[in-house]
Amino acid sequence: MIAVDWGTSSARAYRLAPDGAVLARREGADGILRVPAGGFPAALVEMVGDWLAAGETRVLLSGMVGSRQGWQEAPYLGCPAGLSELAGAVVPVPFDGASVRLVPGLSAEDAAGTPEVMRGEEVQILGALAHADEDGLMCLPGSHAKWVRVVRGRIAGFTTSMTGEAFAALKDHTILGRMMTGRAEVGPAFEAGVARAAEAGGLLHHLFGTRTLGLFGRLAPEESASYLSGLLIGHDVAAALAEPAQVLLVGSGPLMALYGRAIALAGGEAIAGDPDAAARGLALIGERIQWA
Amino acid sequence: MIAVDWGTSSARAYRLAPDGAVLARREGADGILRVPAGGFPAALVEMVGDWLAAGETRVLLSGMVGSRQGWQEAPYLGCPAGLSELAGAVVPVPFDGASVRLVPGLSAEDAAGTPEVMRGEEVQILGALAHADEDGLMCLPGSHAKWVRVVRGRIAGFTTSMTGEAFAALKDHTILGRMMTGRAEVGPAFEAGVARAAEAGGLLHHLFGTRTLGLFGRLAPEESASYLSGLLIGHDVAAALAEPAQVLLVGSGPLMALYGRAIALAGGEAIAGDPDAAARGLALIGERIQWA
Repeated sequence: MIAVDWGTSSARAYRLAPDGAVLARREGADGILRVPAGGFPAALVEMVGDWLAAGETRVLLSGMVGSRQGWQEAPYLGCPAGLSELAGAVVPVPFDGASVRLVPGLSAEDAAGTPEVMRGEEVQILGALAHADEDGLMCLPGSHAKWVRVVRGRIAGFTTSMTGEAFAALKDHTILGRMMTGRAEVGPAFEAGVARAAEAGGLLHHLFGTRTLGLFGRLAPEESASYLSGLLIGHDVAAALAEPAQVLLVGSGPLMALYGRAIALAGGEAIAGDPDAAARGLALIGERIQWA
Repeated sequence: MIAVDWGTSSARAYRLAPDGAVLARREGADGILRVPAGGFPAALVEMVGDWLAAGETRVLLSGMVGSRQGWQEAPYLGCPAGLSELAGAVVPVPFDGASVRLVPGLSAEDAAGTPEVMRGEEVQILGALAHADEDGLMCLPGSHAKWVRVVRGRIAGFTTSMTGEAFAALKDHTILGRMMTGRAEVGPAFEAGVARAAEAGGLLHHLFGTRTLGLFGRLAPEESASYLSGLLIGHDVAAALAEPAQVLLVGSGPLMALYGRAIALAGGEAIAGDPDAAARGLALIGERIQWA
């Protein structure tokens, strides 16, 4: 089977053995925003045409490719949902020479009734579980970080925090960025930001401290991005962890270490999930699909 | 006396009678960012040269004109500080034909020891007090909103929230702005945002609801900016008002109504301060200066 985690700005394609093992992987050049209307069959051929020519006849796609801006809309499936529910709700799209299916995204409501959505993360979440009937709390750091409750191997509910996108907007488009050099990394400045997030005053007040600490020489320009990141991730973790808990962290890149440290500072325990969780999730869903 | 509230992007000049009455007022074209190095004497003449020619010999300036980027730096004065302390700390600058003084800004520390600064707001705050020995809580909405504790007519301490600048950055530089038309105003969408801010989950999570409520048709594009504003101002007010209190609101423009409504929804009482507070504060400081 061919599995593609096809997002807004990038795509990752996997060729999978019948047992789910990854035989080959590649980065596709085009996220869905760069594919013209009607251009998805051609973009798929460009990405994995050689695997198709080699005889693969099943293609499973997840992520924003199933949104209104993608190949075709695969309507959100409500939580709770697991592998079987997702497999039963895949949407076929017309394609010559192979069976192509879109995995739907998930919707939920938070405790106050505000809607939540995800597209793509659901396959990473289910692929990251070590056991099919696992319980637990998971976090997927990113522009829109997801905090996910898994109950008996199904996604029971989740919340989204705009932590990554807020960081970028504040860094690049407010006065805070003027005194900033370098990037966010784990260290004393990041930890000071996380500690500050646990104090009274609220995030909007804490943000201004990034500037005043710089003005008074208590935060160097090269520490400033780390402090701001600590503030935001600290607030994110504090809101999501009502009490110290074990958190399965799923994803890749520098945010993993930052979230891991902030969770530890909040008294929790972060466990790094499988970086190939998307491939594994798509393999597990693929096994459950009626392809015929 | 001539009084000028001279900020980063604009300037407001007042010609004051000996009793502090405003005889004339005008908007200066140039905030300090548009004045070239060494160009402040000429910029002052351009703004109020006719009043100087008519015989005014005392000029009192407040705001960012006293910052490192301004005419000359007037170092921050520590809180607590009132009219007398500010009058005693004004900084003279060389100018032909008149005595020109800069009012310093104020610094403070919040409860956790993080530094705070203001420049210009201190004269508005002291000018807005009805009685010289007043106690109270004040709020100056803006890009960097100030919450100020006044004790016996002196500024005892204050905190800054980046509420206005965060709103602009999130609206103009994140996905939240894509579905937004129109501007923030008091109404049901703003009030829904304020109510949401009182719920669990934290600001970074609440922000994402602006998008999902739009996606699910529960928030119209023309309501979206008001909801986002309600979220941010609601979080700001909730953090600043530990318990319902009377708040003297100082400033002008649309933010006054938004903050007034959010304070009322939090159980507080907002009272609109004098819109000419800056002129009055400069007059009161001017009376206490040793001009000779």
